[in-house]
Amino acid sequence: MEKPPSDSVGIVKLQYFTFAELQLERGGRLESVTLAYETYGVLNADRSNALMVCHALSGDAHAAGYYTEDDIKGAKKNTGWWELMIGPGKALDTNKYFIICSNIIGSCYGSTGPNSIDPATGKEYGMSFPEVTIPDMVKAQKALLESFGIEKLVTVIGGSMGGMQALEWALQFPDVPKSIVIIATSAGLSAQEIALDAVGRNAIKSDPEWQNGNYPSKKELKGLAVARMVGHISYLSEEGMEKKFGRRLEDPAMAASMSDFEKQFDNNFAVEGYLAHQGKKFVERFDANSYIYVTKAMDYFDVDNKYGGGSLNKAMKKIKAEVLMVSFSSDWLFSPAQAKEIVQALTMNNKDVSYIEIESIHGHDAFLLDKKSIAENKIMGQAFKNFLIHIK
Amino acid sequence: MEKPPSDSVGIVKLQYFTFAELQLERGGRLESVTLAYETYGVLNADRSNALMVCHALSGDAHAAGYYTEDDIKGAKKNTGWWELMIGPGKALDTNKYFIICSNIIGSCYGSTGPNSIDPATGKEYGMSFPEVTIPDMVKAQKALLESFGIEKLVTVIGGSMGGMQALEWALQFPDVPKSIVIIATSAGLSAQEIALDAVGRNAIKSDPEWQNGNYPSKKELKGLAVARMVGHISYLSEEGMEKKFGRRLEDPAMAASMSDFEKQFDNNFAVEGYLAHQGKKFVERFDANSYIYVTKAMDYFDVDNKYGGGSLNKAMKKIKAEVLMVSFSSDWLFSPAQAKEIVQALTMNNKDVSYIEIESIHGHDAFLLDKKSIAENKIMGQAFKNFLIHIK
Repeated sequence: MEKPPSDSVGIVKLQYFTFAELQLERGGRLESVTLAYETYGVLNADRSNALMVCHALSGDAHAAGYYTEDDIKGAKKNTGWWELMIGPGKALDTNKYFIICSNIIGSCYGSTGPNSIDPATGKEYGMSFPEVTIPDMVKAQKALLESFGIEKLVTVIGGSMGGMQALEWALQFPDVPKSIVIIATSAGLSAQEIALDAVGRNAIKSDPEWQNGNYPSKKELKGLAVARMVGHISYLSEEGMEKKFGRRLEDPAMAASMSDFEKQFDNNFAVEGYLAHQGKKFVERFDANSYIYVTKAMDYFDVDNKYGGGSLNKAMKKIKAEVLMVSFSSDWLFSPAQAKEIVQALTMNNKDVSYIEIESIHGHDAFLLDKKSIAENKIMGQAFKNFLIHIK
Repeated sequence: MEKPPSDSVGIVKLQYFTFAELQLERGGRLESVTLAYETYGVLNADRSNALMVCHALSGDAHAAGYYTEDDIKGAKKNTGWWELMIGPGKALDTNKYFIICSNIIGSCYGSTGPNSIDPATGKEYGMSFPEVTIPDMVKAQKALLESFGIEKLVTVIGGSMGGMQALEWALQFPDVPKSIVIIATSAGLSAQEIALDAVGRNAIKSDPEWQNGNYPSKKELKGLAVARMVGHISYLSEEGMEKKFGRRLEDPAMAASMSDFEKQFDNNFAVEGYLAHQGKKFVERFDANSYIYVTKAMDYFDVDNKYGGGSLNKAMKKIKAEVLMVSFSSDWLFSPAQAKEIVQALTMNNKDVSYIEIESIHGHDAFLLDKKSIAENKIMGQAFKNFLIHIK
């Protein structure tokens, strides 16, 4: 039998938790809500060592470990997306903590979302799925937490949209998380970010293959591929793209190995081939309707208005958790400037807040890229450790 | 009769110049090439007062004046796109200069482009139009210049892709322009800029209405609208968008007045309605195939490789014209950093170069926006005057 590395949680299993109903912030209601989730480590007797990990836009519940022995042999195949951070002795130490990661509602990785069956009709929801928000996602996670009988969390941690969820945890349930770690995130999207999301959604909706969300096959959704291309440009920094691609033309050998799907796109320059490849990979793994619902949830996220009557300063008054905020210098999607606004608002309210801006040319992606941004992730992991050590 | 303002060139006429053939940089050849153009002011006896204006991506030859008396009455309807700069006593003074502006080849405003008739087939070129480059555009402009018997230009001036043409003039024909004024431009696109262009082209090509370039009607080209949306995000600065839209929701009255075309897009936030409107306007006025060819020409522009064996410094050695470079502080598409690279390379070659970075929150659009960026344009116009006064 193939052994997992000693600092890995090893073989894990995706589990499901179903609860009766969820009243949604924007007026809708879901019946029989399922959350797909995984756990790592052991919950202690007084249930005081739990920690929640929240995933980003297109992430899933599989934050650490492997599903099968084959995954261990295969290079990174089906390894958890935060394997770098979660495991025995790692920054999020499974020898100490019981870690929960659940797939958000609205997504397509096992939790209730637009491609789930609507119990009322027996058919997929599609675009009849009700609008969901970040607060709804967190409310569903709270139900999962209660099923474990857990009343306090050591921390809630997440990057990008995962950071929004962590922030929302501290606002909606101020007495539950003792701390939150919010990475490369903001308290509400800027007009530019909403605009980029809108372009992605419009690309999906303009695609006749999408058929108002009732597409027979997801394999040919070029609109979703274009949406992912826009996304990718915003996840990388200008400097990072320049270093990686510059004005280099597509390698003919690479071009020849392209799939028919990739060949449908403009692939003259190397950066274009890269985008086509990212587009194709995304279409294979993600759901177009989920993309619409989840980006919309991000756009609606608005801490200032929901909790502060329009003021971030007032909203931050509600926070009881200690906060660690992490940003990356070249992240122009969720910029250090946005992070500093949160840090300042917390500071003005005499909250316990730490901030680290990590130098990186990898833009927004720095919090996830493992091979390229090993250095950034080492710093980030150490920052988690230093922060968590004093959370009692 | 309605009188034009005294500082306007008044009623002008779009004219056409046709020449036999154009050998193209990337291997193709065009026969019977037409350039649509306009002129303002009077060419002096020794033909020494000519000045060429080059337009940007989606611009045309109509840089100043009006076509009809109705245009004078109507608020800005069909007024030249650089009316602010061109006219008696203005920065580009038609009392002194003879100004030529021609539509680029590849475009859709009267010059030979993909929606022209191919003399070989009697049908529209469509995607069988050969690839054109910025050097090709300039070569065609040179033929037009020769038809006037003009051997020297006081200056060639342009913003964005117009600036690329001006720079190319000074490189391909170093003895023709005595000076060039290059605004919000670069010597070659970055990987990020190529990627943004590629997303636009892919949105067009993914649209089945486009039909490989043989669309029966341009009115329903949603892909082109999505391409324009991506463009618009890159033309505005993050700060400018935030100030203009923030997280404001679409005004219901505005939403109700939307066209069916606009309603097909995601229009929840004000910025989304704005993008839908910009998309619709663009689809009405511009050609999808031209968009593909002209953005591709921008992507191919590469001064370093064409003239300097990979080095901008070496390329700039060839320049004889005096150079004025203008950039805008918040322009992230053609950033001040890119402008400074050109300025430094010229300086290292002991060339006569002036540089001004104008403070603005209007991003790349600052060089064209007239109402919003009046202040920036006043500074820019004064910079033109100060620069041109010593060009003999």
